[in-house]
Amino acid sequence: MSLIVVGSMAYDAIETPFGKTDKIIGGSAVYVDYAASNFIRDINQVSIVGYDFAKEEMESLKKRGVSLEGVEIVPDKKSFFWSGKYHLDMNTRDTLVTELNVLADFKPVVPESYQGSEFLMLGNLMPRIQIDVIQQLKNRPKLIVMDTMNFWMETTMDDLKKVLKMVDVLLVNDSEARQLSGEFSLVKAAREIMKMGPAYLIVKKGEHGALLFHQQNVFFAPALPLEEVFDPTGAGDTFAGGFIGHIAKTKDIYFENMKTAIIVGSAMASFCVEKFGTERLREITKSDIEERIKQFVQLVNFDIALI
Amino acid sequence: MSLIVVGSMAYDAIETPFGKTDKIIGGSAVYVDYAASNFIRDINQVSIVGYDFAKEEMESLKKRGVSLEGVEIVPDKKSFFWSGKYHLDMNTRDTLVTELNVLADFKPVVPESYQGSEFLMLGNLMPRIQIDVIQQLKNRPKLIVMDTMNFWMETTMDDLKKVLKMVDVLLVNDSEARQLSGEFSLVKAAREIMKMGPAYLIVKKGEHGALLFHQQNVFFAPALPLEEVFDPTGAGDTFAGGFIGHIAKTKDIYFENMKTAIIVGSAMASFCVEKFGTERLREITKSDIEERIKQFVQLVNFDIALI
Repeated sequence: MSLIVVGSMAYDAIETPFGKTDKIIGGSAVYVDYAASNFIRDINQVSIVGYDFAKEEMESLKKRGVSLEGVEIVPDKKSFFWSGKYHLDMNTRDTLVTELNVLADFKPVVPESYQGSEFLMLGNLMPRIQIDVIQQLKNRPKLIVMDTMNFWMETTMDDLKKVLKMVDVLLVNDSEARQLSGEFSLVKAAREIMKMGPAYLIVKKGEHGALLFHQQNVFFAPALPLEEVFDPTGAGDTFAGGFIGHIAKTKDIYFENMKTAIIVGSAMASFCVEKFGTERLREITKSDIEERIKQFVQLVNFDIALI
Repeated sequence: MSLIVVGSMAYDAIETPFGKTDKIIGGSAVYVDYAASNFIRDINQVSIVGYDFAKEEMESLKKRGVSLEGVEIVPDKKSFFWSGKYHLDMNTRDTLVTELNVLADFKPVVPESYQGSEFLMLGNLMPRIQIDVIQQLKNRPKLIVMDTMNFWMETTMDDLKKVLKMVDVLLVNDSEARQLSGEFSLVKAAREIMKMGPAYLIVKKGEHGALLFHQQNVFFAPALPLEEVFDPTGAGDTFAGGFIGHIAKTKDIYFENMKTAIIVGSAMASFCVEKFGTERLREITKSDIEERIKQFVQLVNFDIALI
């Protein structure tokens, strides 16, 4: 049940109304790892870092079952760096600094040992890199999930359209779904996006939950109402990690199980926002996760017999 | 299982991106009636209208089991009139005209025949009127549900606080919950509002669904993802009507049944927005409602066994 994870490994500096951090570990692949490794321990990472990426961080990932054989270490460049500041409502943020560094000329190489992996999670990255990885795989994985963002819709739509034809599940947020489809109604947007390639579409709505579309079906998972959202950074990647982690663990790629996977993803994301960066994800135990998933069941469960 | 409904009976002129209406029937009590009468046929209305309120509209309500004995008809004044225009996103609107007319000096009188009603739905109206009705009831109903709005928080907070102490369930939207409590987090807002009186709080989030709070419990009901929202006018009142209609039908005021009642309210609201005003609510049948509730079950149902 091996899973390839492609995405960034980075440093972030985050400012929220609750405080600010120095450079801390981040990047889409790192959040996916910390979430998915609660469910599977055979994760094959494809990424790139600079000379400044801390050895302890590499070790910490390895201990969670993440192979770093596919992570290129560039000796004379720095790791990708992002800095942002969240507004009071925590839904909007300003990017203060983006330094691509090693990411600027990243050419992913999938090691021979990763061949035959059953699942592929393409974290948010240049669509060209996502295509490159898929093309290097000798056997198509059972399920390919991809994340993307509005920036690629604005700068490299042709590549984005190409990769959309190659994947099974697309993850975007609501404004990105609207931008990609040109439709305001999410039901119409979903129909248009599924015509572009992916058979499944997940629309993330932050504090308002997430929708899963497939053919004529739709499923809704709420976000857990929280007292405080401390730091939303990485919540979307953590959601993706919980989703693909559950799928890879169960090896079941049908719609019914995807619904459950979305609840698992939502539960993982609800932990992520409780502390800065990956801090909370490193602390939680199996029983914390089980307890949180029970809360989701309570949150949406009602007695049909009473109708 | 009789229900007293207090609220406005009005004329509305509505403009949306999809079209505009002449004066059509509206008002909080009218929407509550059209929703609740699918579940119970013993509705006792308390309201006020002018000489211009169409007889056919009165007859149409009576046919649905609504007693109008408690509706005052003022011979020399016009009915309450509201006109509004929705923006493209359908979430925001401008009020173009508000003519209070008969509502300006409404003194509700609860007829003797309404005494002993088991349920009370206080639609959005001046808090003073809501208090007045409660005080006229010789026996306290089993459940008192009230709706309100930001306008009363800004103009008559003292009266609003009084009525909050007298009711069981408060219905507000998310921005009103934040305004009333001074808390941004809805979890914290709910805690503060429940201290003000109501044991149950329902926070309506429009297209993002609704939350029910009670003590430490929280339940979430999604809104049905729709292709088009044609006209949102009255959706909140229709939700309230479905909610109280289900409670009055089942005579069960416990938390578990309130969860089901919120699903019923959400289903009714999803019909309301499909056409202008009350038009869609007049068409739908019992089987339409059953079918829609099944869609809600599909929307949130997932298999815990797969976790």
